[in-house]
Amino acid sequence: MAHKFPEDLLALVAHLKRLPGVGTRTAERFAFEFLTWDRSVLKTLGETLIDLHGKVPPCPVCGCLADRGICRFCSHRETTSLCILASARDAYAVEETGNYRGLYHVIEHLLSPLDGRHTNTLRLDRIEKRIEENNIREVIIAFDSTLEGDTTALYLKNHLARANLSISRLAFGLPVGSSLEYIDGGTLAHAFSGRQIY
Amino acid sequence: MAHKFPEDLLALVAHLKRLPGVGTRTAERFAFEFLTWDRSVLKTLGETLIDLHGKVPPCPVCGCLADRGICRFCSHRETTSLCILASARDAYAVEETGNYRGLYHVIEHLLSPLDGRHTNTLRLDRIEKRIEENNIREVIIAFDSTLEGDTTALYLKNHLARANLSISRLAFGLPVGSSLEYIDGGTLAHAFSGRQIY
Repeated sequence: MAHKFPEDLLALVAHLKRLPGVGTRTAERFAFEFLTWDRSVLKTLGETLIDLHGKVPPCPVCGCLADRGICRFCSHRETTSLCILASARDAYAVEETGNYRGLYHVIEHLLSPLDGRHTNTLRLDRIEKRIEENNIREVIIAFDSTLEGDTTALYLKNHLARANLSISRLAFGLPVGSSLEYIDGGTLAHAFSGRQIY
Repeated sequence: MAHKFPEDLLALVAHLKRLPGVGTRTAERFAFEFLTWDRSVLKTLGETLIDLHGKVPPCPVCGCLADRGICRFCSHRETTSLCILASARDAYAVEETGNYRGLYHVIEHLLSPLDGRHTNTLRLDRIEKRIEENNIREVIIAFDSTLEGDTTALYLKNHLARANLSISRLAFGLPVGSSLEYIDGGTLAHAFSGRQIY
């Protein structure tokens, strides 16, 4: 377009459009909002982004986020359970339920052959090493309920199976507070087959 | 919360929450998305933000955004019209209509006494100087249709009024493609009183 923004602003918009759920118009709003921020605030934000991986590195053991060098998920834990996650963020969600006190293991991404994410990217050897070293008795697979999540969970179940190791996956069923009327058939079928003694 | 994110990530989330329409959850999604970006991309983005005001400075004459030192709105223009805007961004919207070839003038913000934006922040003297110097015959006020926009437009109209100067404001009426059924009473009243010979 002939009358578009200055080049440097367009470059900023292009970056912001890569954020989830952000289209051109939202990215433009963000860019113009940044223009109204103080130089000092932009400096702090810019410096945080430049050194983001250095400031918030993944824990070398479990892959969760380390906070100033310390992974709070690797210390003072019951070590017979291992919860496998697809994102460091999910560890915080599980923590907030208050129901789990075991270890975590974050895989880099779910299997998705079309995106080049094959089974070798799962680093199965690392998971098996952790199971050995920590004498794990229970593996809980906490992946999204998507095609990729299902595939990866099935693959892990098949490859980690051994005597003395219980492997489970998060339950499927009705979201709390939901009404049957609005539940899709797949979820309802899962809720039925997974029904619990009451 | 006990299990919240690493401190540096929280600082990033706090910054992102200042963007328009971004709440805590969206800011967290953005922060975790940034964590998946390459170091080099984060570096480019961070450096752009740090020097944003230097890279995209306002034109010292009209207040629109200069592109690498040049304000494309100040050169090769019919100089008898001056369009007054509340944001540099609005100049691009007006440009895209293709209906206007005059000069622009961006005021820093609309009047909003509760937010400390009083009449002295409008820099009326700068607007008057531009009107004199460019021999402006027509001033078009292109503000939002909000309380602040109405107030500021009225203030400017009263203070810029003189012989040989036509002062207008953007028309109020039905948005193109809209249906009467869904139009609020205020807009319909404006559309009626501003009806045009057909």
